Amino acid sequence: MKHYIGIDLGGTNIKGALVNENGEIIKQNTCPTYAEQGVEAVTENIANMIRNLAEGVTIDGVGMGCPGTVDDKAGTVVYACNIGWVDYDVRTALKELTGYDVCLVNDANAAALAEVVVGAVKGAESAVVVTLGTGVGGGVVIDGKLLTGYTGAASELGHMVIIADGEECACGRRGCFEAYASATALIRMTHEAMEKHPESAMHQIAAELGGVDGRTTFTAQQMGDAVGDEVVKTYVHYLSIGIANIVNIFFPEVIALSGGVANQGENLLVPLRAEVQQQEYGAAYTAKHPRIVCCTLGNTAGMIGAAMFAKE
Amino acid sequence: MKHYIGIDLGGTNIKGALVNENGEIIKQNTCPTYAEQGVEAVTENIANMIRNLAEGVTIDGVGMGCPGTVDDKAGTVVYACNIGWVDYDVRTALKELTGYDVCLVNDANAAALAEVVVGAVKGAESAVVVTLGTGVGGGVVIDGKLLTGYTGAASELGHMVIIADGEECACGRRGCFEAYASATALIRMTHEAMEKHPESAMHQIAAELGGVDGRTTFTAQQMGDAVGDEVVKTYVHYLSIGIANIVNIFFPEVIALSGGVANQGENLLVPLRAEVQQQEYGAAYTAKHPRIVCCTLGNTAGMIGAAMFAKE
Repeated sequence: MKHYIGIDLGGTNIKGALVNENGEIIKQNTCPTYAEQGVEAVTENIANMIRNLAEGVTIDGVGMGCPGTVDDKAGTVVYACNIGWVDYDVRTALKELTGYDVCLVNDANAAALAEVVVGAVKGAESAVVVTLGTGVGGGVVIDGKLLTGYTGAASELGHMVIIADGEECACGRRGCFEAYASATALIRMTHEAMEKHPESAMHQIAAELGGVDGRTTFTAQQMGDAVGDEVVKTYVHYLSIGIANIVNIFFPEVIALSGGVANQGENLLVPLRAEVQQQEYGAAYTAKHPRIVCCTLGNTAGMIGAAMFAKE
Repeated sequence: MKHYIGIDLGGTNIKGALVNENGEIIKQNTCPTYAEQGVEAVTENIANMIRNLAEGVTIDGVGMGCPGTVDDKAGTVVYACNIGWVDYDVRTALKELTGYDVCLVNDANAAALAEVVVGAVKGAESAVVVTLGTGVGGGVVIDGKLLTGYTGAASELGHMVIIADGEECACGRRGCFEAYASATALIRMTHEAMEKHPESAMHQIAAELGGVDGRTTFTAQQMGDAVGDEVVKTYVHYLSIGIANIVNIFFPEVIALSGGVANQGENLLVPLRAEVQQQEYGAAYTAKHPRIVCCTLGNTAGMIGAAMFAKE
């Protein structure tokens, strides 16, 4: 049995796992990132974690998932704003500290690969994982291989415009999928609806739960609140447009959702599937439709995926 | 040297070529499709062409590009509206008539593959070909392999929505890229601008050339007509949104344009490149940008690509 180390470098924590060739976690470890202590300190922490996980085991590969844009060919993190790394040759640094050549992958892509190897999408010929969190992230796996692109960036599905000249997006474009389908966008829509509708149950829900979040409008909908129902429908409409775009571009076997909004499960998936299928190109002439499901690995996906990327 | 046969099945003509392993055409042939004579007659014509091209040569594979949705695993044309084929097992029929197992591929995808093997995009690690004709077609090649999808459909890049709830599209969705970036869309925008602006030079150009087509507004722009200039800018803006979406999704080495509108060459490409680069995710942090070029193979792309698909 071969063994790999997968590191998930986040803004808050560095998580690492020893993973076997089947994608099963043998042991795992976490430490704070302390990005403010600088690049060398963070790299030293990563190196310590790798050495610790490797103790007494023959390691067949090490992979690291990083936020932002990585260039695995060059071995560099091109740009990761939330840890302040720009064009950093982390592979050379980690090679000197640990002796291992570390493969680099975008963290959302790593998570997608993990879902295909051991998670919700296990065994799928092709799958697209869409993360509905603060932003909208994406990972595409075709025939077991990650789509990473030529230019060093990953599949940035959240930065596909669905409304030309629409809402401003943090990336500088206007009308991105992320600006309509992220948890952040859902919270914006919830606030807008609450301002217009003082009678909505969402005011009471927010007051009881200490503020508005991505669940507020779903809770209101389930309580029979008409305004909450309207916000959910609007959100699902925009989400369906982006997901149907992804279907028409990739025609994957499965689309798997993760991130906070995906915790709504079938409350979200049932209306979403109905709207997406209406928009599938040629849907009337085929019995093969992409399945739409939720991811299952949660926080372990990044580590497992980084390890599986090293195996690849 | 190995040899392949590539068939390009169109609504008007069936084109076929004997192609060597380098993608060079050795001989070629054309006959009318006569789709109205029925499926058997068309299949018989295809079989005759294959036999004719194979005469005296050892054939290492036969591929056929078809309009619409094909299922190469099943060997069927799922749906090709302009020749009236629905769920037709053409592989079995051609096997009986010729003895060859024919590989099936969508025609736009075949053309994209050809551009990568011998055309504008030769040797590219990854490329997306976008056809700006009556509709907007797409073909995606990653590491020399076509993206064909799980559900039997091809990469329908034209049916990605760029304006939610926008212009009606023939596919049934609203606001598709095709509804803003096809030659048909450009002609619609040209007519709309001419109605509003009787002073535009486009009226005279259309009168002299027997009507409005995809060139009218470009010609007017080059003559200094302000309305023509405005229409071109609007068209390029929408085109840039769809192309930038494709960049952010695939991050390919090259995007190559074909179809009637692409004949504008640098008149189109210069403003397009400028607008797309502004919209590339993380463009400020990398020197690697996808090149945007025009295709070079023209009408032979479909045959060459079908042959290369059989080789693959």
